[in-house]
Amino acid sequence: MPSIFRKSHGFIKYLFSGPDKELYRNYKIVTGRRPNNLSLYERATRHSSAAELNSKGLKDSYERLEYLGDAILGMVVAEMLFKRFPFKEEGFLTELRSKIVNRESLNNLSKKIGLKGLVKYHKNKGSSISHKSVYGDSLEALIGAIYIDQGFRFSKKFIENKLIQPHFDFEELASTTTNYKSKIIEWSQRENKTIRFEILKSNEDARDRQFVAQVIVDEEPLGKGFGFSKKKAEQDAAQRSLQQLKIE
Amino acid sequence: MPSIFRKSHGFIKYLFSGPDKELYRNYKIVTGRRPNNLSLYERATRHSSAAELNSKGLKDSYERLEYLGDAILGMVVAEMLFKRFPFKEEGFLTELRSKIVNRESLNNLSKKIGLKGLVKYHKNKGSSISHKSVYGDSLEALIGAIYIDQGFRFSKKFIENKLIQPHFDFEELASTTTNYKSKIIEWSQRENKTIRFEILKSNEDARDRQFVAQVIVDEEPLGKGFGFSKKKAEQDAAQRSLQQLKIE
Repeated sequence: MPSIFRKSHGFIKYLFSGPDKELYRNYKIVTGRRPNNLSLYERATRHSSAAELNSKGLKDSYERLEYLGDAILGMVVAEMLFKRFPFKEEGFLTELRSKIVNRESLNNLSKKIGLKGLVKYHKNKGSSISHKSVYGDSLEALIGAIYIDQGFRFSKKFIENKLIQPHFDFEELASTTTNYKSKIIEWSQRENKTIRFEILKSNEDARDRQFVAQVIVDEEPLGKGFGFSKKKAEQDAAQRSLQQLKIE
Repeated sequence: MPSIFRKSHGFIKYLFSGPDKELYRNYKIVTGRRPNNLSLYERATRHSSAAELNSKGLKDSYERLEYLGDAILGMVVAEMLFKRFPFKEEGFLTELRSKIVNRESLNNLSKKIGLKGLVKYHKNKGSSISHKSVYGDSLEALIGAIYIDQGFRFSKKFIENKLIQPHFDFEELASTTTNYKSKIIEWSQRENKTIRFEILKSNEDARDRQFVAQVIVDEEPLGKGFGFSKKKAEQDAAQRSLQQLKIE
């Protein structure tokens, strides 16, 4: 009985035409599972420069799936780090996550897992800048597509086993997580300079929670930084100041 | 037979001491399900001002769970909006989500679902500013606790059925999603003024993807805005300009 099922499954497979068959195979190589709804995966790898407008005036490209996949990726990586570092504070976890989930890192990852060859875009249309992140954006969109097509459990496994574990060394990333504020304070002590951090603007009540921090060395303003918390804005300001001082 | 099971279940319940029994009940009222691991829920509702240091020098308070819950909430709301608005672009979805998941909104929500009475913090320790968001932060932490204690499916249902659906009207939120850039351009046309948007700084390669936009009216700089995309920075700059002009 099982052999009959396998045969009929094989028969259904052969109903697909040549190019589709190859596409199914290619996405299976990348994701580890044959797509149910191939068009979702094709959308996830189609930049707007290569997309047609649909009947609702919306481009059939990856942006909406990218929005969804970005949220799923962020959550799964958050949980991985939460479990891996049970004695680290949330600031550390947040910084480590942003080292894994950032434009450059996702672009590289996308190429490593072989998604690059599946991404469609036209070089002539639009500016070249928007293509800088096309592979990473498409990877996020692919996560969104897998989530819709295969459910949460499989998309989580895909992120954990195909994206993160083989390509990121948490220990190494953790060891290079820099505390820029400490670094610039140490520098100022070495150089016998006074240093303080000022919060220039604090939108406590605003939706965007944007803070601006200013590093002041020997009463002279140095770097200015931004962030969604005072702590982050200060770190950012410290990092920019270190760059200005050519220390970093 | 079922009556015996109910009885023995009742007996197990009575093994818990009085205050714990009440706590179990209170968290059940808020979340819809009796906690397995009560200490997770207690941690989720404990601000650092009311927390002891554990053996690892880490405060037994809600911050780490908040980091996790924030990611889960963001993802579930992202999916709800993705499905509810199949013909809206990602910019709209992102903006709508930030209207639901922001400090003020989460603080209110926390009070509405009765979490306020369970949150523990000391007023005297630390500054009063940090307590502004204690209820909303604790709600995010509760989501993290539910996720660990009950799994993804239940935490998703909790967010959808207890937090979002009864308390947010997507249609109403969507109708008030303002395009500030359009608004200020319309104003400039009405007033016969020239207007343009300049990107002052664009950290395309930086991890934080921070952009700064400047509104320039009749060649005079007006509001400055920040955001993780040019579009967002422009919207922010337009909104701040409208505030300066007292139009908004």
